[in-house]
Amino acid sequence: MRGVSVIGIGETKMGKYPGTLKDMIREGAEKAISDAKIDKKLIEAIYFGNFNGSFWSGQSLMGPLVAEAIGLEDLPTMRLEGACATGSLAFRQGFYSIACGLYDVVLVGGAELMTHKSTPVITEGLASATDVELEAKVGATFPSLFALAANRYFYEYGNVREEMAMAAVQNHANACLNPDAQMHKRIDVDTVKNGFPVAYPLTVYDCSLVSDGSAFIVLAASEIADKISGSKIVDVLGSGHGGSTIQVSTKNITSFAATRNAAKEAYGMAGLKPSDIDFAEVHDCFTITQIINIEDLGFFEKGRGARAISEGRTALDGAIPINSSGGLKAKGHPIGATGLSQIFEVVTQLRGDAGERQIKNARIGLNHNLGGMGATCVINIFRGRE
Amino acid sequence: MRGVSVIGIGETKMGKYPGTLKDMIREGAEKAISDAKIDKKLIEAIYFGNFNGSFWSGQSLMGPLVAEAIGLEDLPTMRLEGACATGSLAFRQGFYSIACGLYDVVLVGGAELMTHKSTPVITEGLASATDVELEAKVGATFPSLFALAANRYFYEYGNVREEMAMAAVQNHANACLNPDAQMHKRIDVDTVKNGFPVAYPLTVYDCSLVSDGSAFIVLAASEIADKISGSKIVDVLGSGHGGSTIQVSTKNITSFAATRNAAKEAYGMAGLKPSDIDFAEVHDCFTITQIINIEDLGFFEKGRGARAISEGRTALDGAIPINSSGGLKAKGHPIGATGLSQIFEVVTQLRGDAGERQIKNARIGLNHNLGGMGATCVINIFRGRE
Repeated sequence: MRGVSVIGIGETKMGKYPGTLKDMIREGAEKAISDAKIDKKLIEAIYFGNFNGSFWSGQSLMGPLVAEAIGLEDLPTMRLEGACATGSLAFRQGFYSIACGLYDVVLVGGAELMTHKSTPVITEGLASATDVELEAKVGATFPSLFALAANRYFYEYGNVREEMAMAAVQNHANACLNPDAQMHKRIDVDTVKNGFPVAYPLTVYDCSLVSDGSAFIVLAASEIADKISGSKIVDVLGSGHGGSTIQVSTKNITSFAATRNAAKEAYGMAGLKPSDIDFAEVHDCFTITQIINIEDLGFFEKGRGARAISEGRTALDGAIPINSSGGLKAKGHPIGATGLSQIFEVVTQLRGDAGERQIKNARIGLNHNLGGMGATCVINIFRGRE
Repeated sequence: MRGVSVIGIGETKMGKYPGTLKDMIREGAEKAISDAKIDKKLIEAIYFGNFNGSFWSGQSLMGPLVAEAIGLEDLPTMRLEGACATGSLAFRQGFYSIACGLYDVVLVGGAELMTHKSTPVITEGLASATDVELEAKVGATFPSLFALAANRYFYEYGNVREEMAMAAVQNHANACLNPDAQMHKRIDVDTVKNGFPVAYPLTVYDCSLVSDGSAFIVLAASEIADKISGSKIVDVLGSGHGGSTIQVSTKNITSFAATRNAAKEAYGMAGLKPSDIDFAEVHDCFTITQIINIEDLGFFEKGRGARAISEGRTALDGAIPINSSGGLKAKGHPIGATGLSQIFEVVTQLRGDAGERQIKNARIGLNHNLGGMGATCVINIFRGRE
């Protein structure tokens, strides 16, 4: 297999999008192509992630919509879906299409339009990523399932409610430095603890946002990347994809096998270990999820993730900054775009283009994207060029 | 890239499934694994196609459901979607995952549960594969769009209403010989012409069926296929994927660029030309679609497809038998499974296991799967081993 590089990135501002689904797709895709500084006719295929536009917008078959939006109607396209890991699945397929020599240049992207729907309809659409027969149909929602995880975590490792809140506090602080973030509002631990209760112990400030947004990445074979593109190139060092049972009743919910398996594959391909990673974008659909994930990724010992956050070790100036973008919690969580927006941030940091939120000595970055209640996970590792 | 082979196939009987979505997935997957005669623990990943279970069954994230159904919970999984080409997109991704050396053995599959919903809900869900903003929202449905294609075809090439009906007559006759087919009912040209009118000139007998069903394929690297499997092995010679604009207003609707592009790629990879193909399963969502497709595949000259069918050249004993399974028209069209059920038939024929509908001298077979109004197309070419 040959090397694959990121040559272009683009995303919309997250939040309520002031146009149609097509407008949002076009904006993200055109930004990525423009950033790549390539002749767009070099693009040979489109890998597109969308979670539930079939339900929320009545629109399936979105791949060709992307092709039309960028004026390349005859490209082969496909849609990938794996709940909240949807965007990274699209990335992974695009990555392998180049790695194996099928294509030289591809566009990967994702989008989700959500804010036009009411909260009950959004909740119902999200709950379609549970085992519906056993879970959603008896009233389970994602906040309730991850609340179970938080309670179990407290039972196993002690009540870290205050430390857990710091994940939200930190992500909100980072988002204030990200112009694409949906929330620009500093909060403190008391704000989180006293927030509107959602599912004990989670309050509304422990939960990620309902967002519109799109994010796109242009990938090219490393051997041609700097010949065709005028952008700052970032190389993909590794990619991993793990799975686990969808239902909550039969698995460990304070450590996700999907993350551990994906991490093993990604680290193995990159020839790296957790301590080699300078910074990461980590799936934080809920504060507890970020804590479980940074442990499963090997950044911190099991049961120590919450304390590590509260000690500032994951802050922008910490040992391993997490979610410099603001994360799903404060940058936003447009499901199909989320994994690609994580990669947008990793690449921005590796290029040294992150402005006020720039991480010092950012050479190797990772994105971690989780789907369902730990049912599928994609992890990618990137390195900037000097 | 290395060679890829089919080592196992399985499908449910098409029609109204007497169990749940999970039951249907389990039946198809277990049949394929059993047919492959392998230790199922060799399977490393699952590529799964489902079109619109998010809308019709409220279930997204179906990959892990497949993993659970076969008792391999920790496998990486993903869902592919490209409207009616969904199943073949899953196949293509599984094919490339082995071709590029990522995995040695994968399970690809697809399923759709449809008969539990009313006709208006099915029609609405299907219409999500149009450009919804421009088409479905102003009342367009797939029968109406393909009726436009039929009328335009008549305008360009003459009124072939009687010859077109023969596509349905032939597919119904073939389905009578296929125990997995939904319809076992012989019809004649008058039945088709006098059928309940759907969208002029199409009657209900020009339209494919609403079906439940699942179909699965086990793929392995050719270099290990006969070492790990006790089944009759079939090799994948080529795969092609083409695209075109989603909306009907801006394209040629009597010849689909998506098919022509996919065919060029698949024939090129296989080093074959149309006349090398012994038989094919060709997307026949409507009778007119089969006619357009067999022309775009290069089997017949433009404008001559309908006559070729009426002359018996695509019958079981014709020069190039088409849809020996009964096709979408009479075997059934469970959207996410359709492309894989086509491959099930191609492999069955190449193994010489097709019983009463066995095609003589079937050595090289092709499946053609179209999504949307010619918006995406996947074509695969297979060869049996002596």
